[in-house]
Parts: sequence; C-alpha cells; structure tokens
Amino acid sequence: MTKTNQMWGGRFDKAPTELMLEINSSLSVDKRLYRQDITGSIAHAKMLAKQGILSIDESQKIIDGLKIVLNEIEGNNFEFKQELEDIHMAIESRLKELIGDVGGKLHTARSRNDQVATDFKIFVREECQKDILLLKELRKQLKTKAKEHIKTIMPGFTHLQVAQPVSFGFYLHAYYEMFGRDIKRFENAFDVMDECPLGSAALAGTTFDADRFFTAKELGFKQPTKNAMDSVSDRDFVLEYLSIASICSMHISRLAEELVIFSSQPFSFVKIPQEYTSGSSIMPQKCNPDACELLRAKSGRVFGGLISFLTTMKGLPLAYSKDMQEDKECLFNVCDTLSLSLKVLSEIISGIEACPQNMLNALEKGFPTATDLADWLVKKANIPFRDAHHITGKIVKFAEQHNMRLMDVPLKEMQSVCPKITQDVYNVLNVEASMNARNSYGGTAPEQVKARLNED
Amino acid sequence: MTKTNQMWGGRFDKAPTELMLEINSSLSVDKRLYRQDITGSIAHAKMLAKQGILSIDESQKIIDGLKIVLNEIEGNNFEFKQELEDIHMAIESRLKELIGDVGGKLHTARSRNDQVATDFKIFVREECQKDILLLKELRKQLKTKAKEHIKTIMPGFTHLQVAQPVSFGFYLHAYYEMFGRDIKRFENAFDVMDECPLGSAALAGTTFDADRFFTAKELGFKQPTKNAMDSVSDRDFVLEYLSIASICSMHISRLAEELVIFSSQPFSFVKIPQEYTSGSSIMPQKCNPDACELLRAKSGRVFGGLISFLTTMKGLPLAYSKDMQEDKECLFNVCDTLSLSLKVLSEIISGIEACPQNMLNALEKGFPTATDLADWLVKKANIPFRDAHHITGKIVKFAEQHNMRLMDVPLKEMQSVCPKITQDVYNVLNVEASMNARNSYGGTAPEQVKARLNED
Amino acid sequence: MTKTNQMWGGRFDKAPTELMLEINSSLSVDKRLYRQDITGSIAHAKMLAKQGILSIDESQKIIDGLKIVLNEIEGNNFEFKQELEDIHMAIESRLKELIGDVGGKLHTARSRNDQVATDFKIFVREECQKDILLLKELRKQLKTKAKEHIKTIMPGFTHLQVAQPVSFGFYLHAYYEMFGRDIKRFENAFDVMDECPLGSAALAGTTFDADRFFTAKELGFKQPTKNAMDSVSDRDFVLEYLSIASICSMHISRLAEELVIFSSQPFSFVKIPQEYTSGSSIMPQKCNPDACELLRAKSGRVFGGLISFLTTMKGLPLAYSKDMQEDKECLFNVCDTLSLSLKVLSEIISGIEACPQNMLNALEKGFPTATDLADWLVKKANIPFRDAHHITGKIVKFAEQHNMRLMDVPLKEMQSVCPKITQDVYNVLNVEASMNARNSYGGTAPEQVKARLNED
Amino acid sequence: MTKTNQMWGGRFDKAPTELMLEINSSLSVDKRLYRQDITGSIAHAKMLAKQGILSIDESQKIIDGLKIVLNEIEGNNFEFKQELEDIHMAIESRLKELIGDVGGKLHTARSRNDQVATDFKIFVREECQKDILLLKELRKQLKTKAKEHIKTIMPGFTHLQVAQPVSFGFYLHAYYEMFGRDIKRFENAFDVMDECPLGSAALAGTTFDADRFFTAKELGFKQPTKNAMDSVSDRDFVLEYLSIASICSMHISRLAEELVIFSSQPFSFVKIPQEYTSGSSIMPQKCNPDACELLRAKSGRVFGGLISFLTTMKGLPLAYSKDMQEDKECLFNVCDTLSLSLKVLSEIISGIEACPQNMLNALEKGFPTATDLADWLVKKANIPFRDAHHITGKIVKFAEQHNMRLMDVPLKEMQSVCPKITQDVYNVLNVEASMNARNSYGGTAPEQVKARLNED
Repeated sequence: MTKTNQMWGGRFDKAPTELMLEINSSLSVDKRLYRQDITGSIAHAKMLAKQGILSIDESQKIIDGLKIVLNEIEGNNFEFKQELEDIHMAIESRLKELIGDVGGKLHTARSRNDQVATDFKIFVREECQKDILLLKELRKQLKTKAKEHIKTIMPGFTHLQVAQPVSFGFYLHAYYEMFGRDIKRFENAFDVMDECPLGSAALAGTTFDADRFFTAKELGFKQPTKNAMDSVSDRDFVLEYLSIASICSMHISRLAEELVIFSSQPFSFVKIPQEYTSGSSIMPQKCNPDACELLRAKSGRVFGGLISFLTTMKGLPLAYSKDMQEDKECLFNVCDTLSLSLKVLSEIISGIEACPQNMLNALEKGFPTATDLADWLVKKANIPFRDAHHITGKIVKFAEQHNMRLMDVPLKEMQSVCPKITQDVYNVLNVEASMNARNSYGGTAPEQVKARLNED
Repeated sequence: MTKTNQMWGGRFDKAPTELMLEINSSLSVDKRLYRQDITGSIAHAKMLAKQGILSIDESQKIIDGLKIVLNEIEGNNFEFKQELEDIHMAIESRLKELIGDVGGKLHTARSRNDQVATDFKIFVREECQKDILLLKELRKQLKTKAKEHIKTIMPGFTHLQVAQPVSFGFYLHAYYEMFGRDIKRFENAFDVMDECPLGSAALAGTTFDADRFFTAKELGFKQPTKNAMDSVSDRDFVLEYLSIASICSMHISRLAEELVIFSSQPFSFVKIPQEYTSGSSIMPQKCNPDACELLRAKSGRVFGGLISFLTTMKGLPLAYSKDMQEDKECLFNVCDTLSLSLKVLSEIISGIEACPQNMLNALEKGFPTATDLADWLVKKANIPFRDAHHITGKIVKFAEQHNMRLMDVPLKEMQSVCPKITQDVYNVLNVEASMNARNSYGGTAPEQVKARLNED
Repeated sequence: MTKTNQMWGGRFDKAPTELMLEINSSLSVDKRLYRQDITGSIAHAKMLAKQGILSIDESQKIIDGLKIVLNEIEGNNFEFKQELEDIHMAIESRLKELIGDVGGKLHTARSRNDQVATDFKIFVREECQKDILLLKELRKQLKTKAKEHIKTIMPGFTHLQVAQPVSFGFYLHAYYEMFGRDIKRFENAFDVMDECPLGSAALAGTTFDADRFFTAKELGFKQPTKNAMDSVSDRDFVLEYLSIASICSMHISRLAEELVIFSSQPFSFVKIPQEYTSGSSIMPQKCNPDACELLRAKSGRVFGGLISFLTTMKGLPLAYSKDMQEDKECLFNVCDTLSLSLKVLSEIISGIEACPQNMLNALEKGFPTATDLADWLVKKANIPFRDAHHITGKIVKFAEQHNMRLMDVPLKEMQSVCPKITQDVYNVLNVEASMNARNSYGGTAPEQVKARLNED
Repeated sequence: MTKTNQMWGGRFDKAPTELMLEINSSLSVDKRLYRQDITGSIAHAKMLAKQGILSIDESQKIIDGLKIVLNEIEGNNFEFKQELEDIHMAIESRLKELIGDVGGKLHTARSRNDQVATDFKIFVREECQKDILLLKELRKQLKTKAKEHIKTIMPGFTHLQVAQPVSFGFYLHAYYEMFGRDIKRFENAFDVMDECPLGSAALAGTTFDADRFFTAKELGFKQPTKNAMDSVSDRDFVLEYLSIASICSMHISRLAEELVIFSSQPFSFVKIPQEYTSGSSIMPQKCNPDACELLRAKSGRVFGGLISFLTTMKGLPLAYSKDMQEDKECLFNVCDTLSLSLKVLSEIISGIEACPQNMLNALEKGFPTATDLADWLVKKANIPFRDAHHITGKIVKFAEQHNMRLMDVPLKEMQSVCPKITQDVYNVLNVEASMNARNSYGGTAPEQVKARLNED
C-alpha cells in the first residue's frame, strides 16, 4: 500500500493504521454491489459523452474497461485490496490500471456519495422484485395446498382454544392473504424509491452540464431526485425495505409457530416433510421441526436489522456521514434471510401432509358448534344473541361435566335450560354442517374459500 | 359487579380477581375508540335491517340508542366501568340499559374480534390522513422559509466537516423532500388497509346472510376482507403505521439534531424561537433548545413502539389472541408523539432565524471551494479528475499551513504545484460563484432550488 | 401563568406556547417522584445546615415545609400546575408559598440536573428491591407447586417434540432457576447504582463547601459519585434496570407460552385457574387463557422500553440534555408491567392444576424411552453410543409403523435389529423407571429435584 | 454425503435438501467454538474415566484424538463439511476417523444440547474477560490524557449550550467513570454465569453416574447448574452480555458524537489523529472523522443484536429449540464490534490533540460564569438563590444586548439591577477562578480531578 490513499491522499501526511483499515474498509461487504456499480458507471460514462463532457472515444474506452472489470470479477479474476476501502474505489482503481489516465475522468460530475446511493438503491429495488417473485411462488404453493383441503375439517382456534370448525384450506388461505399484502407493500416501496440520486455529486450538485434524466432512465428510474443534499443523505429506501421485511417475517414466524405446534405429538395435525426435520444426537426417536423453528427464530434477526439501522440513522446531520456505511451489512443479512426463508417455506408448504383424523379428534373436544347452537336460538327461537349465549354456556357446562359432545346432550337436558329448544337443533351441531353454514363473504364454507382463492 | 361476566359468563363459576381485572381490562385505553365503535355498530345495524336479519324497527332503535350513547360519552356523561373489560362491551351494555333486550341483537353476525379490528383500522386510517395534513403543513413552512433563504450561503457539511457552499434554502429543501416521501408512504399504507374486516365474526364468517360489501362501503373501505381468519388475526395496518412513523420520526430527529448543533454557540447559525427554549434552574444565562432535543429524543419512543408490537406479534398462532390487545396503547402513544412532534416542528421552522454572517465565517474556515478548483483543472487544464484532486489537496495543505483561504493563495504558489493554473482560477474560488455554479438538476444554485420548490 | 417562568425566566422575553408546554412539561409523568424528591431535599437541607451554608433555623423551616408539602400530596391536597414544568419545580414553588423566601435557599449547591438524577436513582433502586421481593414470592409458589409434583410424570419436550419423561415438578424447577438468576441480576445492578449524584450541581460541582458523603449516606447510598459531569449525564441505572426487566420478561413469556399451549385442548396438561381466563362474546364454550397471553405479550412492551431509551441515549453529548427526560415514562411503564406480571404469574402458578393422565397419554405417543434403550445398549451390550443410537432409531421406526409403544415391540423384532438385546431391556423402557434413572446432579429423578429445591 | 445424517439418521428415510442444509447448518458460524468444544470434550472424557464409565485407556485415546483435531484446525488442515451440521458433529466425526469406534463413546452421558450450552458459555465468559481488559486499556488512555489536561479550560455544555467552565481533563474523567461501570457490569455478569451446564444431557440429566462438579471445576466454573432442563434452555448469559455491550456501546457513541462535533470547524476543540480520518473522492480539502462516525454508528449494530436475540427467545417453550441456534452469529457480531470499537477508541484518545484557544473562545461566548455571579449574590449579599438567579438573568441580558462578556459589564450597570453588588464580584467572573472554585467532591477543580483520577 502506498503511504496515503491514492484516491484522496493529497493533503494527508499519515496512512491509516491497521485498526483504521479494519473499521473503515467496507470492501469485504460492499463488493457485492460490483454489478450495480459498473452498471451505474456505464450509464454515467454514456451521459458524459452525450453531454460532451467526455469525448465519445474516452467514454467508450471507459465503458469497455468497465466491462473487462465486470468479467474479471464474475470470473473470480479480480483482486480485492482492503486498502482501496470500498468496491467503488476498487473498480475505479482497476479501471485505471486497464485503460490508463482516462479512467480518472469517469469520476467527473459525480462523487462517491451519489454513486453509492445509486448502486445501493438499484440493489434494494432488485431485492424488492426478487422478493415479490418469491412471495408469488409461496402463494402459489399455499393456493395449491389450500385447494386440496377445502373440505378438510380442522379446529379453528382463538387463544389456541378450539373455537369453530374451519377447513385446512381456509386456514392456509389466511396466510395467502397475508403474503398478498406483503407483495403490495414491496410494490409500493418500489414506487417510492423511483428517483435516481446519480449526479447529485458530493451534496450540492455539480458544475458540469450533466443530464440526470438520461442516467435515471438508463438505470430504470422514473426520474432523478430533486435535491442533491437529500439524495446523498437518504437511506429511507433501506429502512422501508427493512420494515416490510419485518412484517413479512412476522407472518412467516406465525405460520412456522403453528407448524411447530401442529406437528407436536398431542396435536399431530400435520406432518412436516421429513427432509425439513432433524434428529437428535442423543434421542433416537426424534424428528424435530428444525426448519420451522429457524423460520420462526429468524424474525429476530430481521427485526434486529431494522432497529439497528433505525438507530444508526437517528439524529445524523446532513449530508453523508460515514455512519451510513452500516447500511449494507445489515440489509444484506436481512434480504438473504428473507429470501432463504421464503424459499424454505414454499417447499415445506408444498410437502406438508394433513392428518384429518387428528384434526377432527381435537375438534370434538372443544364444543366447536356452541356458536351454532346460540345462532339457532336467535334464528329459530327469536332470542336476543346475548341471552342465547348464556343459555348455550349452561348447556356446554353440562356437556363438559358429563364428558360428552354437544350433539350428544339429550334434548330433555337442553330443554331444561331453555324450553324453546326443539329436535331441529341437532341439525346445526354437526361440525361439517357448521362449517358449510359459514358462507358469508370470506367465511370458511368450501364454496366461499374456493371463490376467494380463484379471485387472484 | 355480578359474579361472572354478563357478556360471556354462562359457563363460568368464578369471577375474575382484582389482579385479573387489572391486567385484562383494556377499557382505560381503548375507550378512545368509542366514536369508531359506534360508527361501526351503526353501519352494522343498518346492514342487519337491509338483509332482514333485524326488523327495520329494531335496527332503528339500536341506531337511536347508539347515538344517545355517543352523546353521553362526548358530553362526559358516561360511566366507564372497568369490569366491562373494553369499550365495545361498555357501549353495548349501556345500549341495553337504554333500549332493553333488543340491544342484544346488535351483536348478531359479528364478534368482538372483527368489531375491534374494524374500529381500530378506522382509527389508524384516520391517523394516516391526519399525519398527511400535518406533514403538508410542515412542508409549507419549510417551503416558505426555504424561499426566503435561496441565496443565504451556509456551509454544506458532510461528516460535519465543511464540504461545499450551499444555501440555507437548499438545505431546508432537503427536508422538504424527506417529508414528501413520508406523505407518499402514508398514502400507500392507506391503500393497503382498504379492506374492511367487519362481518368476519369470530374467525370463520357467519351463518347469517350478511352483506359485507354494504358495511365496507358505509365505513369508507373499498371492499371487505377476503378471509375471515386473517381478518381477525391481522394487525399489519398497525405495524405499517408504526414503520412509517419510525422513518418520519428519524427525519425529525435529524433536523432536530442539526438545530441543536446549529444553535450551539460555536456554530450560532440559527436562533430557535425563544418560546421553544427553556432556561436553567441554576445557570441564569441559559437558553436551551429543549423542544428540539425532545423532538430528537422521541424517535426512541417511536422506534420502541414499533419493536414492541413486532415482538408481540412474533409467532402468534391464528386467529385472535389476547396478546393483540397490546396494539392500542402502543399505537396511541406513537401517533400522539408523531402529531405533537410535527406540530412543534412546524412552529419552530416558522420562527427560526438564520444568522448569515456566522454561516459565512464557518464556511471560510473549511476551504469550501476546493472542489471548484479541482473542477477548474479538469475543465480548463484538461487534467483527469483524480489528478486534479491530488493537486488541489496539495494547495489546500499549503493554505492550511499558512492559515489562509484558498482564494488568498498567491498564483505563484499554485503554479508551483501545477503550472497549468492561471489567474482565471480565482473566478471559481469565491463561495457565491461556487454555489451559483452548481446548477445541475437538484443542485444548490438558487435557480435550481427555486424551480424544484415550485414543482409541487 | 406569569409571562415567563418563575424559576428561570430572568433573561426571557417570551413565554412558552401551549405546544411548548405540552411537549416540554414532564409534570404529569414525574409527579410520581414526589416522595423521592422530598426525601432528597430534606437530606440536602440537613447537609446545608451541617456545613453552615444555611442556618439551622433556615434548614428546619425548609424541612418542616417539605413535610407539609408531602402531606398535601399524599392527601390529594396539592395542585399540580403544568406550567411549573416538573415535580421539582412544583414542590419548590409550593414550599416558597408556605415558608416564604427562605424556600429559595434550598436550591443552594445543587441543580435540577443532580436533583432529578438522585430522585430517579432512588426510585429505580426501590424498584429493584420491590422486584426482588416479587420474584421471591413467585419462586415460593413455584417451589410449593414443584414439590407437589415431584413424581407427576409429563413429557419433557425439545423442539416441542416428546423427548424424555420428566416430572412436572422438575419442569417448574427450571423456571425457579431462571427467576433466581433474575434476582441475582437485580442485586448486582443495585450494587452498581450505589453512588449518589446529589451535590454534583449543574455539571461541574459547586462552589459551596458541600458534604456529599453526608447526603449519600442519608439517602442510603454507599458513596457519592466521583465526577459531576458524569453524574448528571448518566442514565446507566435506567438502562440496566430495563435490560434485566427484559430478560426477566422473556422468562415470563416462555412460561406463559407453555401455559397457553399446555392448556390447549389437544394438550390439556394443565388447567389455568378460571379466574385468570375469559370467555368470548360470540362463542359460549370459550374459556381463554387471556392472562397468560398478556403475560407473553407484555415482553414486547418491555423490550420496546429498553430499545426506546437506548435509542434516546445514543450519541447524546454531555452533560444533561433534555432528551434524557424521556427516561421516566419509559421506565415507569416497564416497572409497572413487570410488577403486575410477576404478581399475576404468582397467582396463576399457585392455582394451576395438573392433569397427569393427559400428560402420560401424550408421553406414550413419543417413544420417550428411546434414549434409555440406547443407553442400555451402551451399558449392557458395550456398543458405542453412536451405534446404539442407530440401532434404536431402527426399532423406533418399526414401532411407529406398527403403531405401538417401544415397550410393546416384541423381543424377536428387537433382536432382528440387534442380536445383543435381551429381555432385560424392558426394565428401562418404562417411563417411570426412565425418569427415576436420571439421577445425575440436576436431573429429573425425584430425589434430585427434591434435593435441589431444598438447597435455597 | 450419505443419504441420511450419520449422527442421527437411524429412523430417517430422506436426506435433507440443499435448502435445508443451507438454513439448518450452523457450521460456518459455530466453527469459531472449536477450541471451547475440544476443551469441554477433554474435560468430559476425563470425567468419564474417573467415574469408570470409560476405561482410562479409552478416555486417553479420545483425549489424544481431540488434541490432534485441535492441531488440525489450528493448522488449517481440517475440512469443515457443511452436511455435518455444526462444529460439534464435525469434531466428533473427525475424531472417529482418527481413533475409530471408541470415538463414539465420548458422547456418553451428554447431549449436543448441554455440549453447545457449555461451549458457548465458556466463549462468552472469555469475551467478558477480554472486554474487561480492553476497557481497562481505554481507561488508562483516558486517565493519561485527562492528567495532561487537568487545567485545560473548555466550555462544559448542557443541552450543547455553554454552561460552566470545566477542564478537558474533567470532561475525559466523566468517560473514565462510565467505562468503569461497564467493567463492573461485565464482572457481575461473569459471576452470574458461573454454573456449568455440561452433563445435563438432552434435558433431563443422565442415567450414567456422572460427576458434574468435576467437569465444572475443570472448565473454570464454580459449580454445575442445578436443573438440567433449564441448563439446555438457558441463554441468559448471551442476553446479559448483549445488554452490557449495548450500554457500553451507548457510552462509546456519546464520546464519538462529541469528537465529531468537537472536530467540526466551528468548534475545532480537538484534532482527531489523522490516521483515523479519511478524505473525500471529490472534495480535496476533506479530512473526515470516519472512525468516530463508525464508532457512533455501531451502537445500532449492537442494540440490533440485543433486540434480535431477545425477540428470538421470546415465548420459546422449554427445553432446547432450534431457534436458539441464532444466538451465535448475533453474539459474535456484537463482541467483534465491541472489541474493535474499544481498540480504535483507545488509539484515538491516545492521539487526540486539544486546541485550548478555540475552547476558550467558545467559552467566552456563553456567559459561563453567570452561575458564579448568582452564587456570589447568595454568599456575599445573602440573597435567596432563586432571586439571585433572576438578577443574574437580567445582567446576562444586558451583556448579550451589548455584545460583551459578563466581566466587561460595568459595575454601575450591575448595581442598577441589584444595588448590593460590589467590585468584589469581578473576582468570580473569571473562567479560571470559576473552574478552580468548583472544588466540591467530584467537581471540576484541578485538585478534585487529580484526586479522583488517582483513586483507582
């Protein structure tokens, strides 16, 4: 390494210490942005030529050189030198080795501040698009599995207590809806991050006659950003990504939690595909839902990433501060976690097996048609709902004490609580009838679930 | 209090203990939703009549009764009884006192689970709209103040080190842009939360022939939710609000931090309106920027609210669990904090005074036109930017050692570093010229800032 | 309200606006510190007299006046005026009304900065002591319940899959240990916060001849703090409390989660005392574990409090900044949450009922003695553990396919997998034998659990 | 890779997929624990021999084999195979290759659950000790620098407004105190984590006659843990480390923030050693405090790590769940961040240069002796402090309007505000006199700072 930095060392007497390099260099992390950086530089070089700031020949040399660098990196023929600080310097330094002094002209009318903002924004936009595809695949698996189980009866829980009979398909459709909202959020975020910072230079714009609309368009943005100082200080796009990832990750954690509970022996509602379980080093019978537990656990990592970077951005003066360099490691960790989680979850859903008999057994224990009894009292006996609720509560208490299902309670006993009850009531106490009867829009009746699943 | 709960006590032998009431009751918090609850119930009652589930007469009695309750609450003539658990029960209980048994029919074809989801979603939507208005007001103040200071020169900082001359108007416009993105996010979130959960009942839909499109429309939603289980389990709208509030609050914290620094004696760039400062109990000379410090500090409260509720929702089984009751206190705290912060900030911006001479003095200390010198070398002497940077670095070092501004360095000294430099260079070393020259789209040149401020 | 603040208004022309009062005043929150404030002031007044800074008569008048104020507050005869900003000003202002100008002498040799740090530190120390008592009570309930169930066999889970037979007493003892560590942490924190900030004045100490060792001792601290600037800038004690509360709250959330799962119908391992459950407004059969869910949920509130205040303190310049005022609302919320949670949990544990038959049934489904079979192969057949594990795995697979327990697999079948197996193996396949055999220190054998429970 | 896992594959038909390996394997992360794992295994092997569970010969073979593995790893001659899941399996698998079947006996009387808890606890304890040393080194640098500057006068700030004159040495001593508390916390945490989980086996203890006191002592713990289920479920030690690291990191962020502000041109109080600053790619004059900014920023990473793992542990059922595997990446990230930060900060402090003239200039602007004037009125004119404060406020206002220092206000003007003021007052208005006069315990007077710095 030369004594001082080749990119900015003019006024420096001392070289950074080893410790300084260790804390300051981001190359080991941000080298992942090489493609976005080269894409951005090519667009910038084109623009410089178009505006006559560089000659067409100079611009072409730079573009050719950048393509060589790209090939070197993708072919693993590129040496990443920590003392070059970051990927932007590493690429430019290699460019100058390849094409000589003209390489130094690429940095005209821009700064690292707008360059890194642009590269990283492109990356985050690509991640949004990738996640949307993964979420669509997951929804596809959920829809397929849900359609298979539109009539598979299981206990619907509230408070993890048996509530009402629902179908396993209906249950899966609930998650289908959640992941649908996640897609909407990623799409909205993509729209908000549709302004390109390139050309904002250090913080104040440039004295060159740059065409920022040109580079914005080249790089797939709708328009350039409107304030240069904001452009280099802004990491909203990172935080918005992390927020959406957190909500999505929360959804994943809920499904994963339920799979852990549903595959526990006392439930045994589902079998998780064996290839997503693990054994124990000491207990030979074990078949643990490790993948689901990890899906649940990783919400911590994602929430932590969000709070990390919110904390880092809190109270930062404008414009660029080095603090903002913490953005990448944090985001990379979260987006890798999210991608992997979505892929694993898709496979698990695709391979999951339902155990309808166990679902039914659990359902029977919970008086799941008590609401149907109360509804019958409202409809057929014209009793206000609140009173019907009390009457039913008493009948449930009787059934519990005598260890029987509601449909097994003799009519005489029911009538002793409420004389208006007739034989007709038994028609609504059956779990299948109960499920089929919840045919309001969005309800669990098979017809409803089928219609909703087919809507999008 | 009766021994067991009047709403659900049918099968219960024991009443809740005092401790249970203390941890379980949400009335002291959720009573704030009384208006949304009554609005939702009126829409529900109308629908029940429209569908023939209630008679028109019954429905009207209920609606009239609810309006009386509304008046009682708004007139402070309503007794909130903790043992009634929550605002929904409190209102229904009073309704029955007022209109008798028919009041019990209101709860037909719905459950508290969809009721509370609906009430709270309405509340959060209203908050989004309120915050959008407050952000617009803040942007108006920023725009007004920015227009006054389009030519007021100040140091633009990066890393809190003098970077380049910018205008105070340009600086304020950076925040104008940030708060503009916050508005977009609130608008997008409002769109995502455009589905009405009412009528989803406990978790599985209802056996009554309800018209959920009717109630959705009555309550200003685009459509009903598509899955009843998701409807009662979903608090995405709370988390999305908290996420956006966190990003917005981060923006506020940055501006507040800068106001604290800019009003510190060594800077003295701005005077914060005295009515937003405080004195000290011991130091008679003090005039502390308390309000700005609090604006900065409150980002902690907002981030904490976000992480609170993300944590609470993590790994929750479907459908409704009592854990979700923690949503309200957390959201109320955050939205009150955000509203108050936006209002206070608007007033501070409106009253802030710039101190141009101090800004200029600070600027002179930082060689703010060094980039202009380098740019001159590129443009006029055809030197690649990287080399121009090194040459300038050496001239800066000379100026620093001799304690002079760049424009005071004699031509001879400059030429000893780079013989291509001519007298013409001094034209770009002046801070005003430098600012005016940054006339690229989004740059700090007065013309640019004016045009961008007038764009929206 | 007078035009400007009576405590510090000398150099001010303008009074705070309503918005400023709203964001700046902490009185509605910090009035809770009235007792600590008066205690601190009395100690300070005594010291001022002892050192001859006040006359004994002046000091006595102040002390008498403060006691009157205390009585007024505790008797609800005190008017809290928002414009007085905080409890310290409110008390001093009232003191001057009561005893005249001499009241103004109390603030000699101190500042609000050290005053509030002292008051709040006393409060946090008291909370530590209170929590220690509540944790001891909870441990007492756990110990009592554990002793009752030293022989009640239940499935020990890992990954929520049946692992090995353990006793319910052993299970409860695990939590006994966790809450024991929480006590240690509170005790350690109490030690760290054993230095009294009073007398540090604004930030630099005082010009008066104060005896800080005297006031430290009066207020129960070991010694005064050693650096005045640190004293008024320090809120470590708040953060340490919040950290410990977070870990404790995490423990509570785990137990609460298990109670929710264990009381779900498919498990039915325990009955939560009915007075800590709630019904449903729509489903008459429901008996939901609301209190346990809230205990689980409130971990979010506590973690959020911790992250709130960490965020607020991040990057704050010394010495006191107004940001630090956010400490109180956050801590009060957390310590109230923790106290209530510990009390509720104690009562739930005390009233919980085990359902041993359901526990046994669940256990039988999970081949819980597979490890015992493997251990037998090691001990009796001299097979390396890893091989024994594989052999057992095969036998489990056979049992699963034939839907039988391990002890029901015929010897011949076992021998076909491993010829060294003899009839003796059946002695270890019984769940009770298995539990009793885990008699290593800290193991689940009744003898062990009893001994460990009696140790402290 | 064999079709199913060699350690636990007995009952499995299917091998994990690539995705499962990717999400499930922790080897790339936990290989860092190789030394702790081998140390733990050697202690375990010794114990097994001592208790006659293994023969002395078997035990010795295992120990020798483990030492070979250790050498292989440290010599980079070890192949880490992802399909072996984790470092524990990787080492045991290699051990069996080296010494054959007897290697399989090492896993007698333990499980991976207690093994990983032990390894990781040893690691965290070592980190505590390492951090204590780094904190001591940092305190040494602070003390050295503070001693140099016991008489260097600077403005003490509150609210970043000039408050009172203090010395730069006193200021540095404030941080000396903070980092001293961090040491105490690490020491206390070390005490709490003084129980060894080894021998707890899967969750219930072992059927072998193990001596857990022996292994505890071998590994430097005071005693074994008392409940096996708690032992394998407990990660308090991770959370306690993360909590303390968060508080410490908050301290670092405050000092770093101040260095950023103090080295900004308008302050220019200090010069950060050039080797810890960086230049700009576009602005040749720049010398940015990058290292300080990163120290400030990294608090986000640490807080994020804490909240990550708190979230992950929230609501986890006992005993071991795979979720807990997230502990390591998170902790490694935090402890590396903390170590690096402490080292960098020590070097920065050691190289920092004060600029006393700039400090003095800033001080003069802020009426720093206003409190001294008020104190004089109390002491010499017997005016209650509150009134003295008001009088001083008026004099400050006069001085500000006439743009003069307090000591430049003519006596006549002072007397027109308060006739009791005499010429003597000017003796206390000098900043050096003011600083020297704050000689109370912990005050800024040179004598005090010197005595406190020498205390420990």
